[in-house]
Amino acid sequence: MSEPIRLGIAGLGTVGAGVLQLLAAHGERLSRLAGRPIQVRAVSARDRSRKRPIDLSAYQWTDDAVALARSAEIDVFVELIGGEDGVAKASIEAALRAGKHVVTANKALLAHHGTALAALAEENGVALNFEAAVAGGIPIVKTMRESLLGNEITRVYGILNGTCNYILTRMEEEGRPFAEVLEEAQRLGYAEADPSFDVGGTDAAHKLSLLASLAFGARVAFDHVYIEGIEEIAPADFEAADDLGYRIKLLGVALKTDAGIEQRVHPTMVPKHSPVAGVSGVTNCVAVDGDFVGSVMMVGPGAGAGPTASSVVSDVVDIARGVVMAPFITRAGELVSYERARMRAHEGGYYIRLSVYDRPGAFAKIAGRMAEQEVSLESIVQRRPRTALPGLGDRGEPGAPTPVVMITHQTTEEAIRTALEAIERDGHVSEKPRMMRIERL
Amino acid sequence: MSEPIRLGIAGLGTVGAGVLQLLAAHGERLSRLAGRPIQVRAVSARDRSRKRPIDLSAYQWTDDAVALARSAEIDVFVELIGGEDGVAKASIEAALRAGKHVVTANKALLAHHGTALAALAEENGVALNFEAAVAGGIPIVKTMRESLLGNEITRVYGILNGTCNYILTRMEEEGRPFAEVLEEAQRLGYAEADPSFDVGGTDAAHKLSLLASLAFGARVAFDHVYIEGIEEIAPADFEAADDLGYRIKLLGVALKTDAGIEQRVHPTMVPKHSPVAGVSGVTNCVAVDGDFVGSVMMVGPGAGAGPTASSVVSDVVDIARGVVMAPFITRAGELVSYERARMRAHEGGYYIRLSVYDRPGAFAKIAGRMAEQEVSLESIVQRRPRTALPGLGDRGEPGAPTPVVMITHQTTEEAIRTALEAIERDGHVSEKPRMMRIERL
Repeated sequence: MSEPIRLGIAGLGTVGAGVLQLLAAHGERLSRLAGRPIQVRAVSARDRSRKRPIDLSAYQWTDDAVALARSAEIDVFVELIGGEDGVAKASIEAALRAGKHVVTANKALLAHHGTALAALAEENGVALNFEAAVAGGIPIVKTMRESLLGNEITRVYGILNGTCNYILTRMEEEGRPFAEVLEEAQRLGYAEADPSFDVGGTDAAHKLSLLASLAFGARVAFDHVYIEGIEEIAPADFEAADDLGYRIKLLGVALKTDAGIEQRVHPTMVPKHSPVAGVSGVTNCVAVDGDFVGSVMMVGPGAGAGPTASSVVSDVVDIARGVVMAPFITRAGELVSYERARMRAHEGGYYIRLSVYDRPGAFAKIAGRMAEQEVSLESIVQRRPRTALPGLGDRGEPGAPTPVVMITHQTTEEAIRTALEAIERDGHVSEKPRMMRIERL
Repeated sequence: MSEPIRLGIAGLGTVGAGVLQLLAAHGERLSRLAGRPIQVRAVSARDRSRKRPIDLSAYQWTDDAVALARSAEIDVFVELIGGEDGVAKASIEAALRAGKHVVTANKALLAHHGTALAALAEENGVALNFEAAVAGGIPIVKTMRESLLGNEITRVYGILNGTCNYILTRMEEEGRPFAEVLEEAQRLGYAEADPSFDVGGTDAAHKLSLLASLAFGARVAFDHVYIEGIEEIAPADFEAADDLGYRIKLLGVALKTDAGIEQRVHPTMVPKHSPVAGVSGVTNCVAVDGDFVGSVMMVGPGAGAGPTASSVVSDVVDIARGVVMAPFITRAGELVSYERARMRAHEGGYYIRLSVYDRPGAFAKIAGRMAEQEVSLESIVQRRPRTALPGLGDRGEPGAPTPVVMITHQTTEEAIRTALEAIERDGHVSEKPRMMRIERL
């Protein structure tokens, strides 16, 4: 066997411990398959004395991740510290500059500094692998880098945040409101004490920006992602979706349009019989549409020690085998700065839910506002909800608001927003109109 | 850029034409990414004059695939002829012996001769890549070879034949019998004139034997696959499945048990809410259970020119990049000959449908036969079917047969078969008992 490949691992939380456990379990077989011994040489974390499910005595210890990154003792620096700046960034930069390969699970860092770090890796002729940064155990990065290369990618989308999908699944199954399910998710450990990063859509947007770069040969442009979280979804939306043949998912979608690249994370109506609709609970998925392959989807665990370790280790084995590629497929200097396609230019179908005062002429006025914007309707349902809508009066009372749900044909977001603003101004609705995009799948 | 990588393509049917079209569309970009020009140097097929959707004038032509395989003009031999023996086998062997890399979509050939061909490739230090041989456009081979390496695989399973899944989907949705749907599928081009290879399960078994080898480091053992086709499934089975919360899929499943490796292709009850249940129509899927990653599933097109070409080309690009691995992960000489786990040793839950004469004591006798084999029941439903069962008399008539459906707890196939044989012998049923395995997902 050849020379060993020596790892330095910085960050010994859940994922770091998982990587050490995986290597303890399967390191020997992996070394055989890679053709050279895979050795953990040194580790680093903030607090050596913290209780961990692993024995660290066999590894050199350093408190300084940046020093570890530069150490002559290692060939690969595995960054599992997290955070979009600070020591994670400093140590990765130090490693790349010192000619060390880097493996990281840090989506926030790459979403903000991906293109620059990729350039640094390429200048130094080393790998910057980040399979674990997108959708945990799902090997989507390698699939896009290597397996789907023969395609022009037209769209990439997926369920990229397990916390949101868990909450939406429970809301759908149990008819309960967001706040209540969130609280339970926090109690069960599926949501953080400060959940805004997940439920607000930022985490999914980090991952989407990396997928978009891989798909379209574009510079990573996290600040171009349009983001809407799941906080405003009501039980009434799930009921309407069910009636109309849809499910509600927080989808991240990136596609090329005439206006540039559209990157968006928002609650989305997906047809009940689409594969993505069947992905429930904390599970993630990523689908890629390509001109030759059609559509390929991968489903699996988006987080957790074991799945994330599986991805980190596959990145390490690639390096051990000498497989080093441009991090974002296209070399960093050749990645294109696409126009950001504005959301108002987005084209698609829309779901609209109004709470309409039951007065003569109200409905005609609303229909007129839609017609003014040339929005045509696929279906209109006026129905008594299974659960009460907020702001809805006694339905026996004349003039009390009635829920009205509409599905539009293909139109633009500009037209929808303009129509809804006018409808709200006209005063025939008792609350702000609710709108959700429909994704064609 | 370095030296070009020169391809010889044998077989210019749908897939061969697709590969040429893909390279015409994206060859330049692929060459850039691979770091060297990818060139089709020569092609071969039986009939040069056949009308094809591509211009062949730029390529050398030879009628002799074996001569092409050995040609000094090529570096990679792409075999798209098909067939488990004959010219496909002869030309691949010739190519490997001449030190040419081989890319093939030929599952039948690999199912029968995979281990020997892998050994030949390794002896000659060349690649034998077969992404397109398993599940068409789904990049499952590379995912198992490279991305999931850090796992001990415990089970691999999937929907591996699009024709069967199409027929089952139509039967389920429309409540129609097998023969009628098959005939329609043949008319629409979704099934061959002689459909036995697909509907009988052989094609899925070919693919399963390759997945099992990749998963367990085992020699390819197609003759160890237990095979049952979909011909016997009746509308009444779909109705019962629906009532009980299941769907019916032709699943290929390979797993390690105490008795060896179980490889089986058969109609399977899968829970309605499992991801595999949502895979409809001609779409395929493959799921892999690993000790660290948990479960990862890939969904996509299992056949067709574009998807298959996408896989073939990714195999070519890997070779162009210098990535050459043991075809079945473990080196051929180290692949293990596992015991074949006999189906009678299979453990799982079972679905049983009986047509029971409504006579005093009949049901007690049946229950007794199950008890003798220590088979315990999770549920029993005695119901009037939505459609008539074959062999069922006038239900008003005393003593006429009544459909009875049972779901068992975990038991062995030995116990189930013994109980059903006794039940049939006892004469209280009007037709042979129907049995289907339930997969835990």
